[in-house]
Amino acid sequence: MVNLFKKRPRRSQPSRAPRADQSPSINRVGLAQLTPELPRYLAHGAYLQLSLFETLSKAIIAAPTTKTKTAVSRVADVVLDRHHALSADLEREGLDAATAMEPFAASVTAFHERVHGADWDELLMSAYVVSGILDDCFVQLAGGLPGDYPERMTALLAGDEVTDALAAVLSEEISANPKLASRLALWGRRLVGDTLLVARSAADIPQDTATDDERLEPAFTELVADHTRRMDDLGLTA
Amino acid sequence: MVNLFKKRPRRSQPSRAPRADQSPSINRVGLAQLTPELPRYLAHGAYLQLSLFETLSKAIIAAPTTKTKTAVSRVADVVLDRHHALSADLEREGLDAATAMEPFAASVTAFHERVHGADWDELLMSAYVVSGILDDCFVQLAGGLPGDYPERMTALLAGDEVTDALAAVLSEEISANPKLASRLALWGRRLVGDTLLVARSAADIPQDTATDDERLEPAFTELVADHTRRMDDLGLTA
Repeated sequence: MVNLFKKRPRRSQPSRAPRADQSPSINRVGLAQLTPELPRYLAHGAYLQLSLFETLSKAIIAAPTTKTKTAVSRVADVVLDRHHALSADLEREGLDAATAMEPFAASVTAFHERVHGADWDELLMSAYVVSGILDDCFVQLAGGLPGDYPERMTALLAGDEVTDALAAVLSEEISANPKLASRLALWGRRLVGDTLLVARSAADIPQDTATDDERLEPAFTELVADHTRRMDDLGLTA
Repeated sequence: MVNLFKKRPRRSQPSRAPRADQSPSINRVGLAQLTPELPRYLAHGAYLQLSLFETLSKAIIAAPTTKTKTAVSRVADVVLDRHHALSADLEREGLDAATAMEPFAASVTAFHERVHGADWDELLMSAYVVSGILDDCFVQLAGGLPGDYPERMTALLAGDEVTDALAAVLSEEISANPKLASRLALWGRRLVGDTLLVARSAADIPQDTATDDERLEPAFTELVADHTRRMDDLGLTA
């Protein structure tokens, strides 16, 4: 694990040598340099997927047609599989998955409830924005994990099946009701701030440290750029 | 497909010869002799699994602990996989899954909403009773399906992973709060009637035909006997 912040002594694992293209002299911090301890990464990630699954479940239950219900159910299946894969990794690391996830339950649940939106379309947009940004974030954070975790987490989380499938449903919704576009664009913008706070909480930085936040800026700029591209895919302004 | 009721001309598929142990002269009807057309079987089954999944999703969202949330999420995953397997079979038969399921949406959703119960434990009990009886029913109905469907549907639906996992959660709930036992027993009894009506609607019999209902009796007695065994597993009187 790369650790540029020598001031924090609680890291017990040996530092990994920085990659050739990531000189410690450059004052920009990629998320792979802020990777939390493995159990925290897995547990936080697992609970986020579980909560995203719950959000998708609500979208399934409230879906306006059997077709959209079925489409969202496929997304939910992928997300649930991701949750179970992360839980299985926790167990493999000798931890009880439920116990390890517990510390993240309250904050993640509160976050997901805050971003539910006013109706079915906003709920779906929330799943789209949140999964897009946070899966990106966790793929990047995985860069600093030990063993084959960087590759395995990329294989698990970097695929576009979730966002592509949600984009397809959202695009149909917007086509059927073009007035939705401006409302969903607004709602999407509203979601970014809260979601980036979750991304921040997933990184291994002390809370409320302005200096580290400045250093996080480039990584967050990248997350937001990818988010903007995903909003473009829907024809929406981010 | 075995069809003992010659009076119904709408069956277009060739009858299968009755098995040696199922003489048409015996006036008892197994569910394998009341198998509906394949598309109806698959579509009704697929929508029932989807609705059961929604019920389980509600149980996940409302779960009192991360541990129970995680346990129920594994059950939901199995049920969602069953839904997707049945949907895939519909597509393989050249049908659009969502369109094929549509005629069953309203009645199945109404059924599941009717059996939600008053709280988390009753919701979980509903999933236990409903999945137990209806998966049994669909395994038996599969006996009259063409091709390798009888074997494949048995492999898909006859496993005990759903009811075993739900029984484990329910048993812990009852151990932690013994007063629950009598309430859940009562609720379980309340569920059987409604669930058997769904089982009846899945079989290929004309609605409201008292004669056919009498003939169904032995098959239903068997479904109820298995239900009673599952309630016994929880230490509850059926």
